[in-house]
Amino acid sequence: MLTSALDAEKIESKQEERTANVHRLDSLNLLIFTTLLVVVVLTIWIFKRRNFRYIHETCLALIYGFIIGAILHHTGTTNTKSSVLKMNDTTFPKNPVPNWVSFEDQNMSAIYLYAFQGPYQKDTVHLEEQKAMFNSEIFFNIILPPIIFHAGYSMKRKNFFRNLGAILMFALVGTTIACLSTGIMVYGSVRAFSSLRSFFSFTDSLYFGAIISATDPVTVLAIFNDLHVDVDLYAIIFGESILNDAVCIVLANSIEKYVAGAILDQFDRALMLKSLGNFFVVFLGSFGIGSGMGCLTALMTKFTYIRDFPLLETTLFVLMSYSTFLASEAAGLTGIVAVLFCGIFQAHYTYNNLSIESKQRTRDLFELFNFLAENFIFIYIGITLFTFPSQQWDIRFIILSIMAIALARTLCIVLLSFILNLARKNPISWQWQMMLIFSGLRGAFAFALAIRNVSTHARSLMYTTTSVIVIITVIFNGTLVAPVMKLLKIRTNVREEAEPNSSIHRYRMMENSNNNRDRRTSDEVALLNNDENDDNDTTITIDARHDSSKYSKDERKQESKTWLLKKWSHFDKIFMKPLLTHSSPPLTATLPVCLLPITRLLTTKEQRTLHRNDNFSPNITSSIISSDDSILNNHQGVPTLELIDIDNVDLYSRSNTLIDTDKNGDVTARFTASSSSSPAAQLL
Amino acid sequence: MLTSALDAEKIESKQEERTANVHRLDSLNLLIFTTLLVVVVLTIWIFKRRNFRYIHETCLALIYGFIIGAILHHTGTTNTKSSVLKMNDTTFPKNPVPNWVSFEDQNMSAIYLYAFQGPYQKDTVHLEEQKAMFNSEIFFNIILPPIIFHAGYSMKRKNFFRNLGAILMFALVGTTIACLSTGIMVYGSVRAFSSLRSFFSFTDSLYFGAIISATDPVTVLAIFNDLHVDVDLYAIIFGESILNDAVCIVLANSIEKYVAGAILDQFDRALMLKSLGNFFVVFLGSFGIGSGMGCLTALMTKFTYIRDFPLLETTLFVLMSYSTFLASEAAGLTGIVAVLFCGIFQAHYTYNNLSIESKQRTRDLFELFNFLAENFIFIYIGITLFTFPSQQWDIRFIILSIMAIALARTLCIVLLSFILNLARKNPISWQWQMMLIFSGLRGAFAFALAIRNVSTHARSLMYTTTSVIVIITVIFNGTLVAPVMKLLKIRTNVREEAEPNSSIHRYRMMENSNNNRDRRTSDEVALLNNDENDDNDTTITIDARHDSSKYSKDERKQESKTWLLKKWSHFDKIFMKPLLTHSSPPLTATLPVCLLPITRLLTTKEQRTLHRNDNFSPNITSSIISSDDSILNNHQGVPTLELIDIDNVDLYSRSNTLIDTDKNGDVTARFTASSSSSPAAQLL
Repeated sequence: MLTSALDAEKIESKQEERTANVHRLDSLNLLIFTTLLVVVVLTIWIFKRRNFRYIHETCLALIYGFIIGAILHHTGTTNTKSSVLKMNDTTFPKNPVPNWVSFEDQNMSAIYLYAFQGPYQKDTVHLEEQKAMFNSEIFFNIILPPIIFHAGYSMKRKNFFRNLGAILMFALVGTTIACLSTGIMVYGSVRAFSSLRSFFSFTDSLYFGAIISATDPVTVLAIFNDLHVDVDLYAIIFGESILNDAVCIVLANSIEKYVAGAILDQFDRALMLKSLGNFFVVFLGSFGIGSGMGCLTALMTKFTYIRDFPLLETTLFVLMSYSTFLASEAAGLTGIVAVLFCGIFQAHYTYNNLSIESKQRTRDLFELFNFLAENFIFIYIGITLFTFPSQQWDIRFIILSIMAIALARTLCIVLLSFILNLARKNPISWQWQMMLIFSGLRGAFAFALAIRNVSTHARSLMYTTTSVIVIITVIFNGTLVAPVMKLLKIRTNVREEAEPNSSIHRYRMMENSNNNRDRRTSDEVALLNNDENDDNDTTITIDARHDSSKYSKDERKQESKTWLLKKWSHFDKIFMKPLLTHSSPPLTATLPVCLLPITRLLTTKEQRTLHRNDNFSPNITSSIISSDDSILNNHQGVPTLELIDIDNVDLYSRSNTLIDTDKNGDVTARFTASSSSSPAAQLL
Repeated sequence: MLTSALDAEKIESKQEERTANVHRLDSLNLLIFTTLLVVVVLTIWIFKRRNFRYIHETCLALIYGFIIGAILHHTGTTNTKSSVLKMNDTTFPKNPVPNWVSFEDQNMSAIYLYAFQGPYQKDTVHLEEQKAMFNSEIFFNIILPPIIFHAGYSMKRKNFFRNLGAILMFALVGTTIACLSTGIMVYGSVRAFSSLRSFFSFTDSLYFGAIISATDPVTVLAIFNDLHVDVDLYAIIFGESILNDAVCIVLANSIEKYVAGAILDQFDRALMLKSLGNFFVVFLGSFGIGSGMGCLTALMTKFTYIRDFPLLETTLFVLMSYSTFLASEAAGLTGIVAVLFCGIFQAHYTYNNLSIESKQRTRDLFELFNFLAENFIFIYIGITLFTFPSQQWDIRFIILSIMAIALARTLCIVLLSFILNLARKNPISWQWQMMLIFSGLRGAFAFALAIRNVSTHARSLMYTTTSVIVIITVIFNGTLVAPVMKLLKIRTNVREEAEPNSSIHRYRMMENSNNNRDRRTSDEVALLNNDENDDNDTTITIDARHDSSKYSKDERKQESKTWLLKKWSHFDKIFMKPLLTHSSPPLTATLPVCLLPITRLLTTKEQRTLHRNDNFSPNITSSIISSDDSILNNHQGVPTLELIDIDNVDLYSRSNTLIDTDKNGDVTARFTASSSSSPAAQLL
């Protein structure tokens, strides 16, 4: 009796010790990362202060991670050696492989529990060096979603949709071509090396082509933002790199599935078609979940008055967006695609329903998450290059991979630009093509795809090569983007005032009246620029008066929306916006009268008030302001002096459509007067 | 050659499959939690809207988790059965136990890797039901830190420090007494049951006493906030429950260490003393790290102009606070204590240096984190009651534990209140004592401590019992707090206007001028109320004029600061504040002249300007406002109409100390005028 109690205490304290050790190691690991992040933040601050903009923060994070990884590699191995028990058991059941193994200790009535970590190819894992680092689950479930969501949420939707044709072409067709051609080139050259030929199969090559074709939007775009590069070039590169991540993950999954099938059934053409079909099912399914959840959140925020409680509202927003990712992954689709489109829909609809506090909070929150997650990933890439146990170095393979991806990218950009230029009114010049090729650097996404599975020699080789390529391209291309741009004489310093759309003015007005927000980052500008530009053609006419003849922009004006986009824009205006937001005219006005019983249910009091005001337009400027204030602020009856908000400004422009256009000058004057103290107001 | 390549692909795809399955399961688990959180948010919203305040959100989260757990338990077990390989190997090395076990498969050149999960007592783990749920690492490293930090950051420091004696008495002495007496009572009654006696040792009882003595601050305080309970009672309960978490974790660790020692050396009195010494070392060490990191962050934000970039500033703030936790844990101390004091120091010093945007951002961010983390934990507690594999139910043990904790709590509250009342000028009435006893409900912390280690029968029993006690006390005490308070005739609706300190007025002024913030939550109020109250005695005199004779508050006024607190307050005023913030008078004025070369280095331009203005006091009200504006806003030369800020208001009161006191009326009048539109201003 007494011995068993003592045994129990021994087990207890051993377990305690193990937990404490794991915990301390985890804390230490996390501490290294947070300390590095602090150093990165301080360095960025110094760089910003000294206006030194050639090394981007992700590049910094990478270099710091690299240095610390090297130090850890050369110091940390001795004292953390793991002990391994190698069993050579013939009774081990392989079908299915057990999830748990327990060793019984008769003396102590204890069992030692082991959890399955997956199969590995012999000699790929160096168990002696196996350290408890973060696993890829944390990457995919925690780190990536906020980055992608932020990209969608802060996207300049107007420019994006104007260039949708080119973006889809590059992202869908271009990436597929890049994947296949890289795969074929790599496979072809691998044949030349007997050492690689033995374990690097054709499907491995294709898979490698898929993961290495994911270009990174972060570094280049930050520099583009600083340099004020032409917005169309910006939009194409942004759109391509963000959608291409999604395409790559779907391609990689399809190739994986195809691999699994190929082993069972041998090569099969039907399977290849199935794989292609799978690609579209996954893409469309994920798009459906993402946009559906976006619309659901919009409906929730529209019809509940949850905005009376900004904390609850923000929480709901964050949770709905995150569950979009999870739902999509749990359904076997691609969370990345879902969360990207969820972000776009949230920005387009839900954002308009949020309280002012929540607008600010969600922007701030995702900006912070995005910043932390991005830098975390790049530190991680740097650190693991030395500390990850499953490395497989092959310099020849790295060199030929770099050559292959450069060739593949050149091929698809030139080819697809040629095809696009046949239809585009504003053709993609060879300078832009060069820039598109040059800005195809690899980043977090390629790395995340590579580290997921390092079970075989081939996968370890892919992982190491991807790491090296990410580091080289981020440092090399990232640093040289600005000089190359100068060399190619690509127009920079396209000041946003010169842009032929009203959003900038709108932003400026907001900025001026919104005095404590004058240090906005470019991301916030991007987010603010978005709202409601797509369908307010009248505002563009207003602006044309203010800033004409800065440079010829005839082509851009003439470049009209495509048929599909026009249709969508119309549908958005008469159905989606009135249904999902508090915008006017409401559904009761845009849909046929026979549907009135339903549409009336879907129209809020705010919409009715707004619509009534719209109809009494000529002398309502002041009444709109007041009614609008009372709507936007709160429902607690406290009249407040509200910061001017996007929706407010949007209402001005909407009322302008009804007021005689001569009145526009007055409206602008009102704004200028209200923000007279700021020098930026002089630009109007 | 070819077969080996095929083998590799088989391994690859098997690994792929395993990763995909793990990932899908993880996503599904997370999805359940996010969906439940969404439901909780919506329910809270409905409750708030209908003014139904008797069921708190954590209680809701618990109940929902409970229901879903029950459903999962009865449906999910069949299809997720794990396969276990039971080995009975005599060659298994026990000293040390290997971290990894690998099984080799000769046919395929594959190895199957298993990772050590720790020793367990036979029959405690039901491997068939072992599901991949979250582990305690995520709890301790991710979920708890923001909750504790938020508690420190939003603490009403003034009330807290005024009642520091009582709080420390209850938290340090009270919790230790509760731990020991619960342990002894449980051990005594366990002797009566032969079935428990065999495996529940004395150290187990003590450990159980430690984990079950951690009271939860969340639920009761939310209700207190709603009901506007007397601030001193609030402060005592808040202070006790937040510090007592820290005490419990240190006690539990000490008992664990003692257990480990007791096995090796048998019982030893020296070891017990060592354990006590360890308690203080850990507590003070953690306090040192927490306050040190807080001060470091204050210095960083003071001497760098990182506030020009709010995103970087917020990131730095978050990272420094989090690394406090990690550093403390990695050093073998207690992160919880460290992060609590870090929060207090950040609020007291760093907060004053932050830009207005960062002030708002950090508040919003931690409020959100806190909300999510709290509800997540309670959902988790509810779900695991049914789904966690290592349960050990014993109704008798649950009942006697509940009786033991109730008795122990009554004992220490009554005993310590009696001792405290000997010295207190404002004695703790029997009603308050009843309330203190009643509000000792158990929550997230006790649960987190219990789930860390379930390796033996005794630990599993503790875990199950703790879960049940948490659920019972949260639902029972949480729901009955308001009726019991009514029954005890404890003064509620102590409107904040009636409070004899200026912070409320200050808050009101800020609120009125700060129009878009009128829907503040109680947490934010708490945060705002804090600033600089401790040492501005003048402001109290100002206020006494406005709201005298609401109720007799003589005792409270007379209740002067203790000697230690006075010393600290003085030191804070002449050294800490001038060193760590931009406050005036600067170190050059407060420290001896001989230190001038050093103090000059540590004084910022802002401080010098402020100090100069302070010296020209009689007619500087307007100049202070303008200089202060320019300091607080930004360094970009844009004069802006700033929202009135804590520091601003603080400057008013500080300037008042120099202006003839007759002027105070004017100053207040100015405020009233500037915020005339709001009805709340009438209350002044």
